[in-house]
Amino acid sequence: MNEMRHDWLSDRWVIFAPNRTTRPDDYDRTSHIEPESHLRCPFCRGSESETPQASLTLPGTDWESTRAARRRGRSQPPTDWLVRVVPNKFPAVSPSASREDGSANNPIHDTGSLFVRQSTAGAHEVIIESPQHVTSITSLSHEHTQLVFEAYQQRLAFWRARPEIKYAVVFKNYGADAGATIVHSHSQLICTSFVPSDVLRIQKRLLAFRETNQNCYVCSILDQELHEGSRIVAQSSHFVALCPFASRFPYSVSVIPRHHRPHFDECAAEEIQDLSRIAQSVLKAVETEHPHCAYNFVLQTSPFDQESPDAFHWRLKIIPRLSKIAGFEWSSDCFINTVLPEVAAQALRQRIPGTASLPTSVPVAPIGTARHTR
Amino acid sequence: MNEMRHDWLSDRWVIFAPNRTTRPDDYDRTSHIEPESHLRCPFCRGSESETPQASLTLPGTDWESTRAARRRGRSQPPTDWLVRVVPNKFPAVSPSASREDGSANNPIHDTGSLFVRQSTAGAHEVIIESPQHVTSITSLSHEHTQLVFEAYQQRLAFWRARPEIKYAVVFKNYGADAGATIVHSHSQLICTSFVPSDVLRIQKRLLAFRETNQNCYVCSILDQELHEGSRIVAQSSHFVALCPFASRFPYSVSVIPRHHRPHFDECAAEEIQDLSRIAQSVLKAVETEHPHCAYNFVLQTSPFDQESPDAFHWRLKIIPRLSKIAGFEWSSDCFINTVLPEVAAQALRQRIPGTASLPTSVPVAPIGTARHTR
Repeated sequence: MNEMRHDWLSDRWVIFAPNRTTRPDDYDRTSHIEPESHLRCPFCRGSESETPQASLTLPGTDWESTRAARRRGRSQPPTDWLVRVVPNKFPAVSPSASREDGSANNPIHDTGSLFVRQSTAGAHEVIIESPQHVTSITSLSHEHTQLVFEAYQQRLAFWRARPEIKYAVVFKNYGADAGATIVHSHSQLICTSFVPSDVLRIQKRLLAFRETNQNCYVCSILDQELHEGSRIVAQSSHFVALCPFASRFPYSVSVIPRHHRPHFDECAAEEIQDLSRIAQSVLKAVETEHPHCAYNFVLQTSPFDQESPDAFHWRLKIIPRLSKIAGFEWSSDCFINTVLPEVAAQALRQRIPGTASLPTSVPVAPIGTARHTR
Repeated sequence: MNEMRHDWLSDRWVIFAPNRTTRPDDYDRTSHIEPESHLRCPFCRGSESETPQASLTLPGTDWESTRAARRRGRSQPPTDWLVRVVPNKFPAVSPSASREDGSANNPIHDTGSLFVRQSTAGAHEVIIESPQHVTSITSLSHEHTQLVFEAYQQRLAFWRARPEIKYAVVFKNYGADAGATIVHSHSQLICTSFVPSDVLRIQKRLLAFRETNQNCYVCSILDQELHEGSRIVAQSSHFVALCPFASRFPYSVSVIPRHHRPHFDECAAEEIQDLSRIAQSVLKAVETEHPHCAYNFVLQTSPFDQESPDAFHWRLKIIPRLSKIAGFEWSSDCFINTVLPEVAAQALRQRIPGTASLPTSVPVAPIGTARHTR
């Protein structure tokens, strides 16, 4: 069974998931770029029985029409889904250990021992983004991508309502170098019964900033970034995409909502529609600037169980995997980035129609008003 | 010029080094395993002019005999080095910005701005481990490896004596997946004018533990590990090699001195001799268990400028790069490890002569006595 262990020195939990060594791998590990084949893809339409039962399908499965068709003797595919969420067959966090009553999952601390471990509690889901064998979310239509983000929202809202779950993150691993093992376009959700120490630290810093400055740190940064302009990649009514000032990775982009909002699942339909467009624009720009580049994206939304739930400002971080993490980084947690964010932003802007000539100083509209600059 | 920027949210500095994009790369990036060729290797004997002037050669360059030979009209290679330390031609940290007077290198904080940056100050050196074109430190003799560790000691002692330098780390990137760009066996030293926030946090935790328990945390863990035995990989007179209880990476091994010692450069010659043997044994075991596996190793020694310089316990961390860091890790800093350290230790023990039958409970000798168990 999976377990978590506490690394006391760095004050971090590590999840041990030996079950994940047996998961299938589409990639030829000697090339790291091209998938071997997509024969027998478990995520394609028609292979639904190869995954656990779906926890969500979008649009909702029309069982009535399926049954009616069967009654009329017509053969019809059993589902008509476009986005399908299933439990991960090789979960990092075992759902079996989650406690439905929300009681604390106490660490196992052997008497007199410095070794602290506990069973994992949470869930690990896969968001299958299309019934067709597409390999990149940028191949989907805006409307289809919107459904993917809606699936994120519904699952995040589901897990947030469960008292034993304290944290959840949605992420995508695209390409072998980013940790993907299946090429069919998909993302993942992991939720846990604890808030990871780094997330907790960020949350505390955001709270302290707000108490001192009567404003959200991310809102303040957004104002300054829009004023300077040099790191802006794209803008839309509800979002700003930018290369962060102290980014750890070359060409990393954060998509940040203009309006302060802690939880992603509280976004309005109009915002999700807007997000699907700007996220696709940025990802296409990354794919054009760096063909075959692996990337991760991460949807950082507020931890669930906080004394001050409003402190967080959710964002989508896109992390192209162009550099290798090496000895210095592992020893110091201090990253070396070879590309200034101003250089990366300029290159990416030139890949997005209508943004190349973005002025270095962009006028700032007050938070809370819709701004159309694209 | 290189600069550092502060990521306020995570409270971490990031080093920006655009100069490093132009460094040469031996690896065919489509295969990630085999080097393309070693034509014109800048680290081989005879190519000394392709690197900056050496800051150290071991054994010491016998300039007198070289000059005498020249006077006698004999052609003789200009150097007779076995290990050679040179400034990195593409430094992550620019030596030009280091302040010789030890004065503070104040952050540049634009008035009214949330963006904090400062010039880098420190040094970046390369330790060339052999004049021959060997690609792994495990191909060197024990005596030669000992010289490599002696070079680390001398350079760490040199930088520790400079008041502007607060932190230094020696590390090795082996293989493209571990961040290497040159295949000729080498390691690197980076020193900085600041202590990275993660290192500072560990230092503070060690200090707090010692104040509460009147003992070093690492010394205490070592006693428990030796008592349990299941994570022990190898032992020698002065060192224990083990797979840490909450290791973030599959098959990661720490080589820990039995005697509490903060600074690596204070090790006695006898200890360095012992270290070269146990480090080679462990690295050979990793190479045999996982052929062609890239790895990093990191020599974590005490930060230089601490109120309590004795709190640290130095160690050598070996990190095989068998897994990919993916979206969940980037979002939470919580790692998923698919191999339990007990399983990894057992596999590695079987690759080291005389350790496979290690009992699960190994008797513990008091700290400070020499123990011979191999």
